[in-house]
Amino acid sequence: MSLGIGIVGAGVMGGDHARTLSRSVHGARLVALADADRERAAAVAAEAGGPRLHAEGRALVEDPQVEAVLVASPDATHQELVLACLAAGKPVLCEKPLAPTAAACLDIVAAEVKLGRRLIQVGFMRRFDPGYVAMRAALAEGRIGAPVMMHCLHHNAGVPPWFDAGIVVTNSAVHEIDVARWLLDDEFVAVSAFLRGTDGGAPGDRQFLVLETRRGVLVDVALFLNARYGYDVRAELVGETGTVALRPQAPAELRQAGLQAIGLAPDWRAHFAAAYVNQLQAWVDAIRRGTPTGASAWDGYVASATADAGLEALRTGGRTAIALQPRPAFYGG
Amino acid sequence: MSLGIGIVGAGVMGGDHARTLSRSVHGARLVALADADRERAAAVAAEAGGPRLHAEGRALVEDPQVEAVLVASPDATHQELVLACLAAGKPVLCEKPLAPTAAACLDIVAAEVKLGRRLIQVGFMRRFDPGYVAMRAALAEGRIGAPVMMHCLHHNAGVPPWFDAGIVVTNSAVHEIDVARWLLDDEFVAVSAFLRGTDGGAPGDRQFLVLETRRGVLVDVALFLNARYGYDVRAELVGETGTVALRPQAPAELRQAGLQAIGLAPDWRAHFAAAYVNQLQAWVDAIRRGTPTGASAWDGYVASATADAGLEALRTGGRTAIALQPRPAFYGG
Amino acid sequence: MSLGIGIVGAGVMGGDHARTLSRSVHGARLVALADADRERAAAVAAEAGGPRLHAEGRALVEDPQVEAVLVASPDATHQELVLACLAAGKPVLCEKPLAPTAAACLDIVAAEVKLGRRLIQVGFMRRFDPGYVAMRAALAEGRIGAPVMMHCLHHNAGVPPWFDAGIVVTNSAVHEIDVARWLLDDEFVAVSAFLRGTDGGAPGDRQFLVLETRRGVLVDVALFLNARYGYDVRAELVGETGTVALRPQAPAELRQAGLQAIGLAPDWRAHFAAAYVNQLQAWVDAIRRGTPTGASAWDGYVASATADAGLEALRTGGRTAIALQPRPAFYGG
Amino acid sequence: MSLGIGIVGAGVMGGDHARTLSRSVHGARLVALADADRERAAAVAAEAGGPRLHAEGRALVEDPQVEAVLVASPDATHQELVLACLAAGKPVLCEKPLAPTAAACLDIVAAEVKLGRRLIQVGFMRRFDPGYVAMRAALAEGRIGAPVMMHCLHHNAGVPPWFDAGIVVTNSAVHEIDVARWLLDDEFVAVSAFLRGTDGGAPGDRQFLVLETRRGVLVDVALFLNARYGYDVRAELVGETGTVALRPQAPAELRQAGLQAIGLAPDWRAHFAAAYVNQLQAWVDAIRRGTPTGASAWDGYVASATADAGLEALRTGGRTAIALQPRPAFYGG
Repeated sequence: MSLGIGIVGAGVMGGDHARTLSRSVHGARLVALADADRERAAAVAAEAGGPRLHAEGRALVEDPQVEAVLVASPDATHQELVLACLAAGKPVLCEKPLAPTAAACLDIVAAEVKLGRRLIQVGFMRRFDPGYVAMRAALAEGRIGAPVMMHCLHHNAGVPPWFDAGIVVTNSAVHEIDVARWLLDDEFVAVSAFLRGTDGGAPGDRQFLVLETRRGVLVDVALFLNARYGYDVRAELVGETGTVALRPQAPAELRQAGLQAIGLAPDWRAHFAAAYVNQLQAWVDAIRRGTPTGASAWDGYVASATADAGLEALRTGGRTAIALQPRPAFYGG
Repeated sequence: MSLGIGIVGAGVMGGDHARTLSRSVHGARLVALADADRERAAAVAAEAGGPRLHAEGRALVEDPQVEAVLVASPDATHQELVLACLAAGKPVLCEKPLAPTAAACLDIVAAEVKLGRRLIQVGFMRRFDPGYVAMRAALAEGRIGAPVMMHCLHHNAGVPPWFDAGIVVTNSAVHEIDVARWLLDDEFVAVSAFLRGTDGGAPGDRQFLVLETRRGVLVDVALFLNARYGYDVRAELVGETGTVALRPQAPAELRQAGLQAIGLAPDWRAHFAAAYVNQLQAWVDAIRRGTPTGASAWDGYVASATADAGLEALRTGGRTAIALQPRPAFYGG
Repeated sequence: MSLGIGIVGAGVMGGDHARTLSRSVHGARLVALADADRERAAAVAAEAGGPRLHAEGRALVEDPQVEAVLVASPDATHQELVLACLAAGKPVLCEKPLAPTAAACLDIVAAEVKLGRRLIQVGFMRRFDPGYVAMRAALAEGRIGAPVMMHCLHHNAGVPPWFDAGIVVTNSAVHEIDVARWLLDDEFVAVSAFLRGTDGGAPGDRQFLVLETRRGVLVDVALFLNARYGYDVRAELVGETGTVALRPQAPAELRQAGLQAIGLAPDWRAHFAAAYVNQLQAWVDAIRRGTPTGASAWDGYVASATADAGLEALRTGGRTAIALQPRPAFYGG
Repeated sequence: MSLGIGIVGAGVMGGDHARTLSRSVHGARLVALADADRERAAAVAAEAGGPRLHAEGRALVEDPQVEAVLVASPDATHQELVLACLAAGKPVLCEKPLAPTAAACLDIVAAEVKLGRRLIQVGFMRRFDPGYVAMRAALAEGRIGAPVMMHCLHHNAGVPPWFDAGIVVTNSAVHEIDVARWLLDDEFVAVSAFLRGTDGGAPGDRQFLVLETRRGVLVDVALFLNARYGYDVRAELVGETGTVALRPQAPAELRQAGLQAIGLAPDWRAHFAAAYVNQLQAWVDAIRRGTPTGASAWDGYVASATADAGLEALRTGGRTAIALQPRPAFYGG
């Protein structure tokens, strides 16, 4: 039988997940959807196979038809909902951030360790993007030798006015932090931050981070969140004998008006469409097989703690050490 | 409830379809698999959710749990199985060719017209490839103006020894014939064929076709089936004001050993992996919605009749007119 | 001492050559320029080091300061000027065509053979283009195996209203004819031509040629002379084990307005700028060394005779054999 | 008449310049060559038109046939030779560095200012590379808006064993320093340096610099001098509305052995071959016209002072301010 999924949140992300689940994922069906805004919940439900509606996430978690929960509600609700899923013994895929602070993430980690069963996955979908997967395979196959540096670029076409320098790190750079850790199988020990002047753009919409890993790899991240020309995410891993880089994914190329061109995605949803589908399919498959996959609660904590050090580096303008708690044996090597 | 699918044929194509259906398609489940070779049927079944096994395609078609049939058995069996599906009133997705001759295709067309209900889809998966879909969209959006020419290239890394000049047309070029008709929404009226000398390669493994459409578009197809360096399919549509072309789809780019490179697919299965998933999902969705999509039996006939004219052009070395039967109103447009 | 060059013709091509010679070529100086239009001759001369002006090409050829002649005057004058250069014993680089007919080209060939000294080069500048040179090197180094097919595309953004179907072959396709012969070191034996309907465009502005060589290589040429989006010349040589293709030569890539793009050249002068400089430098070097290089009078004849067969194929719509005179031993291999 | 050039140094760079001057530059001739190693001087002279040989650079500077001097001798000799050229009133193109220290560069600047005539050009050839020139044009034409960041990558396939962390900055990064100043028309005010662990490679062969300009643009430079896979120089300028990047310059693309690939240059000489030709032609043209162009002695000083700050940042591991002397009005803007 297919797995009964409940989604908390019918906003942009929740709506996308609902449609993906009900159209492109094998072995699962959307059985419940929760959102305080009944109207938008009903609209999403109509497009996604008509799941039962809940006004509250907690009620959805406790719905007996819901076998696994996808949390796509506002950030402030994540911690409570994830803990509720642990209490209910239900697997949960939680959009980042797992919790508002690194300390709160550690509480969740402790709860999961105590439970003794991996139920939590954090929605770092880049781990399921075909480009990053190919980069990791190239590294594993020895095609580029041992890692030396990694260069990342993260441009948004624009961001909401309430974005500030801190949110850029915790909301945007956190994706590079997680995917670089995963690609390199390494941990960050220090971060330096450079903030460009704020003329014209939102405060802090252009930042440059340099992270250093335990094994000495330098990872730089160029962030520019009002780049206007389009959404653009790039990454190149430089090894001792070669490099591997993401490649733009346009299916066709145009020649017109004096140009030979490919189109860029307007935003992260189009850019990472395949990653989102693959993430959901892998999550469903993992639950059905009983083998956890994807970013764990521990990964969520590390991303949060590393981003916090990035914030500190932004404040002080200097190199900031990253102090992580020891990794519980529960989360493996 | 999900749609119960039966697959006839557990060879390379049938096995791929079985795995795709049982892993990546929403709303369907593989309920039956038929193959005279019990061992390979059992091996595929073990990987694909354990469908019931049949020794014969006819038995599978009549299996009451089977709501729709996918025909991936040897070419010689297609006609009979498709007619059996029509008799049973079950939707069928049939790998090309629909039947061994254009005349036999017409018989199937007549049977479907008589039934008065669209049940047949031919497995021209390129219509579901993101690249061709993007080309068609570019044309529809007016980005390149009215079509002028289309250039196609179809290279295989190698072909079985039993391939001959005729099979190159009916097995390989037939894909370009179908996808060009679909892209251009036009019909071919003549074809010329050029056969390069056979030194070194299989007889007729390198051919060049020039097709002409009713509206005057020239479509050329370069075929080379022992190209060794890899599988390579390309297409570019030239319009009055611009062009749109397929773009290689490697997710990552390597720099190593003095080269900046992307990998090419080893064969059509890897190259068209997304097309096959999209084709199956679209087929399942169409059946559940009741709206036929994809290549029809009529399209299967036209592809066959056009390929036959290509064979004639190969034999005579001259320009051959393509005479099609009138299109039944049943198939629209 | 540097070589004294005279240029006949101060139009677009003559002006370009004059500027190139006086700015970018080592070992030569422009000493004379001839054009019936004194005003434009004076304008070019002012930009190109102030050569002496002649009203007539014949006078320039006889000017004792002129050691070598570049013919860039109207096509109708080429034959007479080239013969005058032979008579004067002066090396000549003549823009194509060498003469108005294949027969007239043969007269020139006979005159050069009688003289017993290679003085004539035809301005097939593509032989000096870095892209075609790299393709030839790849073939010579065995990187793609023996040639199988060659695909050529030749798009102009627009052509003068007096262009017609015949001129497309003799003026445009003739470049592909020469460069393919040179790349393949092979000779064409037959040509077929396909003319697309003339709706909207100039008569015959879209043509498709298929040429066959003595060794069985198929060379196709897609011509579209009102392609509007820009000037576009492409070529790919397919061998038994790989392919080599021209690559667009934009020095920089832009991301703007939702596109990742490179610019296309507006016309052949920008596209082949490096080829023109290299051709002139190689011509000057060859004269100073005494070793002829570049396309010979014989190559000019073959290009003309092959283009004539193309015209015949256009007229008849069928496959036309190419009958060449035997090659004089004087022109080697 | 053509300009008489003397070259000091018949090593790799001097030899290349000699061949370029005597083969590809209009309006100049190589009249003299100086090197203490008579044998290698004679070998270069034989390939480069047979210039007169000198054992000493000073003697060449004073040779009355020498109208302009190209200094390509060991770094330690640059300062003395450039000052000798100033004394002799002869234009000089000096390979970087202009002098061993920033202070010594300032002495040269002072001498040129006192002379009151621009005679010195520093050999920052990237300013003449078609890629960087196109980037600068894109910025000037407003295609990317105001500059935000610039990302640079500089990989060598290998470096001599005597390279150390300091030399990486002064020898390699100094090129990015100069070309970024020129592109941005801006000055650096601070630099931070990150040194990756030295396991496996030469000490300091992998560095990462972050430079900040007066107007707030962040310029990062990734250096890896034993990258093995090939020589690789990249740059991308990110503006408020778009980006412009260097594009690899291979003339042809190969498909073979499962790859679609372009070749990378083995070293900087192949990569910047066009830049070197353009630099020499522009230098000769500028001397003949009397209008200085290219990097001035002042630019040489700034590059040196900025690289010194980079060395300091490497030593201290912190952000280092760059303190420049005030720019003499003599050097404009």
